[in-house]
Amino acid sequence: MKPQRRVFVVGGAQTPFLGRARPEFLSFRDTRKGLGRNPSAEEHLRAAVLGALSATGVDPAAIDRAWLSNFLGECFVRQGHMGAMLAAAHPALEGKPIARMEAACASGGVCLATAVDALQAVCDVALVAGVEVETNVKGGEGVDHMALAAHWEKQRGISEFVFPHLFARRARAWKEAYGGTSRDLAGVVWKSRRHARDNPDALHHHTDTSLDALDTVSDHNRTFLEDPDLHDHMRIADSTEFTDGAAAVILATEAGLARLGLRPDDCTELLSYGFSVRALGAETDPTRLVNVAAAARQALGDAGLAPADVDVAEVHDCFSVTEAQHYAALGFCTDAEAPSAMRAGAFERDGQVAVNPSGGLLGAGHPIGATGVRQALDLWRQLRGRAGACQVPGSPRIGLSSNLGGDDRTGVVMVQRAL
Amino acid sequence: MKPQRRVFVVGGAQTPFLGRARPEFLSFRDTRKGLGRNPSAEEHLRAAVLGALSATGVDPAAIDRAWLSNFLGECFVRQGHMGAMLAAAHPALEGKPIARMEAACASGGVCLATAVDALQAVCDVALVAGVEVETNVKGGEGVDHMALAAHWEKQRGISEFVFPHLFARRARAWKEAYGGTSRDLAGVVWKSRRHARDNPDALHHHTDTSLDALDTVSDHNRTFLEDPDLHDHMRIADSTEFTDGAAAVILATEAGLARLGLRPDDCTELLSYGFSVRALGAETDPTRLVNVAAAARQALGDAGLAPADVDVAEVHDCFSVTEAQHYAALGFCTDAEAPSAMRAGAFERDGQVAVNPSGGLLGAGHPIGATGVRQALDLWRQLRGRAGACQVPGSPRIGLSSNLGGDDRTGVVMVQRAL
Repeated sequence: MKPQRRVFVVGGAQTPFLGRARPEFLSFRDTRKGLGRNPSAEEHLRAAVLGALSATGVDPAAIDRAWLSNFLGECFVRQGHMGAMLAAAHPALEGKPIARMEAACASGGVCLATAVDALQAVCDVALVAGVEVETNVKGGEGVDHMALAAHWEKQRGISEFVFPHLFARRARAWKEAYGGTSRDLAGVVWKSRRHARDNPDALHHHTDTSLDALDTVSDHNRTFLEDPDLHDHMRIADSTEFTDGAAAVILATEAGLARLGLRPDDCTELLSYGFSVRALGAETDPTRLVNVAAAARQALGDAGLAPADVDVAEVHDCFSVTEAQHYAALGFCTDAEAPSAMRAGAFERDGQVAVNPSGGLLGAGHPIGATGVRQALDLWRQLRGRAGACQVPGSPRIGLSSNLGGDDRTGVVMVQRAL
Repeated sequence: MKPQRRVFVVGGAQTPFLGRARPEFLSFRDTRKGLGRNPSAEEHLRAAVLGALSATGVDPAAIDRAWLSNFLGECFVRQGHMGAMLAAAHPALEGKPIARMEAACASGGVCLATAVDALQAVCDVALVAGVEVETNVKGGEGVDHMALAAHWEKQRGISEFVFPHLFARRARAWKEAYGGTSRDLAGVVWKSRRHARDNPDALHHHTDTSLDALDTVSDHNRTFLEDPDLHDHMRIADSTEFTDGAAAVILATEAGLARLGLRPDDCTELLSYGFSVRALGAETDPTRLVNVAAAARQALGDAGLAPADVDVAEVHDCFSVTEAQHYAALGFCTDAEAPSAMRAGAFERDGQVAVNPSGGLLGAGHPIGATGVRQALDLWRQLRGRAGACQVPGSPRIGLSSNLGGDDRTGVVMVQRAL
C-alpha cells in the first residue's frame, strides 16, 4: 500500500524494556521481599505516550485518533478493552476514536498500517501506542499464553513449548536446506546482544556475552525441547525472553504537520506498507518465511524500491532463525546465500544492510504489543541520525521494518525514508 | 464521521445465537454424556462468513480487506490471533490484510468503523466478521472474564459480579433520578423476549415469558448482588446471558459494487458513524450514557439527521437499564420522559421508534464479538424489508445502531438508510 496522501513519522518514545536481564527489574523474590514492584502495563503505556508527546512537542488535543497494540493483556494482566486504557493516558484523549488491535506479535505493525489507512482520508494526526507486560507470571504459564498466537485446537498438542517447537522446526529445516549451522544462529543472537549494549532502553543493555557462550549448551543456555528431532535446534538464547515495555509514535499527514507547526523535514516519511495474512493452523514451509516475503514484495514494490535500496532494517527476530530466514524473505540475499552472508558480516551495523542495529527482539526485548511500534521508532531514530550509539554509519536513507505474527501467519512490512 | 466516498452494506449472515435457551444447545451434562458438542468459535466464524458470501453472491476473491471482531477469545477458547483464523475461512482470503480489533462489547462497531475508514481510500470491498464463544466455561469463570472490559486493577474489587454491579448502580440511579421502576426495566426484557420469538436466529426464539415472571424474583430470576444498596436492582433476567455465535457483513464503495456486479439499490447505505472513547476506570455518571450520547450526536449530526428521523434502532441492551438509558442518549426522548415513553409503548416494533425489533442482546443473545456486526446486519434486514416476522411496519428508511463497550467507555453509533 502506497499512501496517496503522504504520511510522516513525527517521532515517539519508549519505556526501557524490562526483564530479568535489566538491573532495575524486580524478580518474584524481590517483590516477595517487599522491595517494590515493576511498572504496570498502564504505567508503561502512559509513560510511552507522555514521552512521545514530550519528545515531539505535539499537543495531545491535536491528535485525531489513536490505536493501541497489545497481544495478551487478557492473559498476563487480566485486562481487555485497552483502547479505553489509552484514552486514560492524557485528559485530552478523552472522547476520541481509539481502539485496540491484536494480531499476535504483529499487533504493532497492524496498528501502524491501520493508522496509515486512516490518514489517507479520515484524520491528519494519529497516535499509535503498544504495550505488553509478560513478566508477572511464571515462565510455563507465559509460554502457554504465547501459544495463543497459534491455532490452539490444532497446535497446542505439538509441544509443551508450541512456538519454540515451531521455530526449532524452522531452524532444523533452514540448516538442512541451506547449510547453516547452530553457530550461525548463535551469531544472530550475538549480533543482537552486541547491538543492544549500545541501546540504553534495551533489555540486554547491560549483558555481556560471547559468541562461544551463546553457541554452547550450558545451565544458562539450556536446550529444552523433548522432541529428539528438534532438541538440538533450540537453546534458551535462541529465543526472545519475557519483557515488559511500551512504545508510542505519532504519525501525520502534511495537513497534520501544518496543524502541529512542523515541517516534513522534521520527520521521516512512511513510504509504503505490505500487509499479508495466511490461514491460522495451516501447514507452513519451514525453510522460508513465505508470508513475510509477500508483504516485503508489496512494501518495496509500492515504494518503488529494491531490496538493495534498504540501508537499515528492524526485523522480527522472535527466534534466531526468524532473523536468518528474514534475510532472504526481504530479498537481501537468496536463501542459499544467507549463511555465508551472515558469516561475512553483511547484516552487522556497518554491513551491506544493518539489520536490527537496536538489538532487535533478541537484544532489545520483545514486549509483544510494543514491538512493531518500537521498530518504527527505531527506524525513525536511524533515519533522523538520532540513534546514539546504535547509529548506523553513513546516514541511512531507507529503512524497512518487518513485524511478524505467529508462525509466518500475519506479516506487516513498512518502509520509511529520511527527508 | 461522514463518508466522502459512499459506503454500502451489501448484506451478510449470522449463525443461530446459541446458549441455554436454545433447544439444540448442549449443556455440560449433555456433552459429558457424549451427546456431541456445540460448534467451536472457528465453526461459527466460518459459517457466518460463508453464509455472508452465499447470501450476497460476493466472490471472496473480490474482498480487499477483512476485520475480525472478538473480545475474549484468549480467555474463553484460548485463541488469540483470530484475524489469521478469519483468513482460514475461505482459501480466497489467503494473503489479504486482515486483523482483529477488540473494544470489549463494542468490538464489532469498532471493526465496522475501521472498515468504513478503509473504504474511504484504500479498498473497495470489505468483510467484517465477529465471533464469540462464551458457553464453554462455568458461569463464575465467565463473569470474571467479562470483568476484563472494566479496569481490572481498580474495579475488580467492587463485586464478584463487576458489570452487573456497575449496571445495577445505573438501574438504581436511573430509577431515583427519573422515576422509573423495576417493572419498567422488566418491560425492556419482555419487549426483547417478545421480539426474539419472531427471530429464528435469536437465543430466546423459543422462550415464552410473561412480564410478571420477568418482574418477579424467583428461582428462575434470582437477585444475586450482595451489596444491599444494589441487591434489588439486578435480577438474572435483567442481564444478557452467555451466548455463542458469529455474524458477518460485506461493505463496499460504488466502485466495489461495480466490481461485484451490484447496484446501490441492492444495498443499504451507511451514512455516518460516531465513535467516542473515554478513560477506562474513571468515574462514570450512573444516570445517563454520556459517551454513547456523544457518539450519537456525532453520527446523527454527520448524517444531517435528527433523532426523530430514526425509524428503527438496534441498541446495546447488555442490561435492561442500558436500553432504558439509551432512549435519552440517542435523543428519542429526554431522560425524564423515558419511563412514561416506555410505558406508552414508544419503543415497541410499531412504536414511535422501533428499538431492538430483532430482540436485541437480551432477546437475540450477546456473543460479544458478533454483536456489533449483528446489529448492522439486522438494520440492513429492516431497511431492505428482509426482516421476516421481525419486520418493522411502514418500510423504515433510517436505522441506527449503538454498540457499547464497558461501562459507557467505548461507543460506536452508526446510521444506515434504505435506498
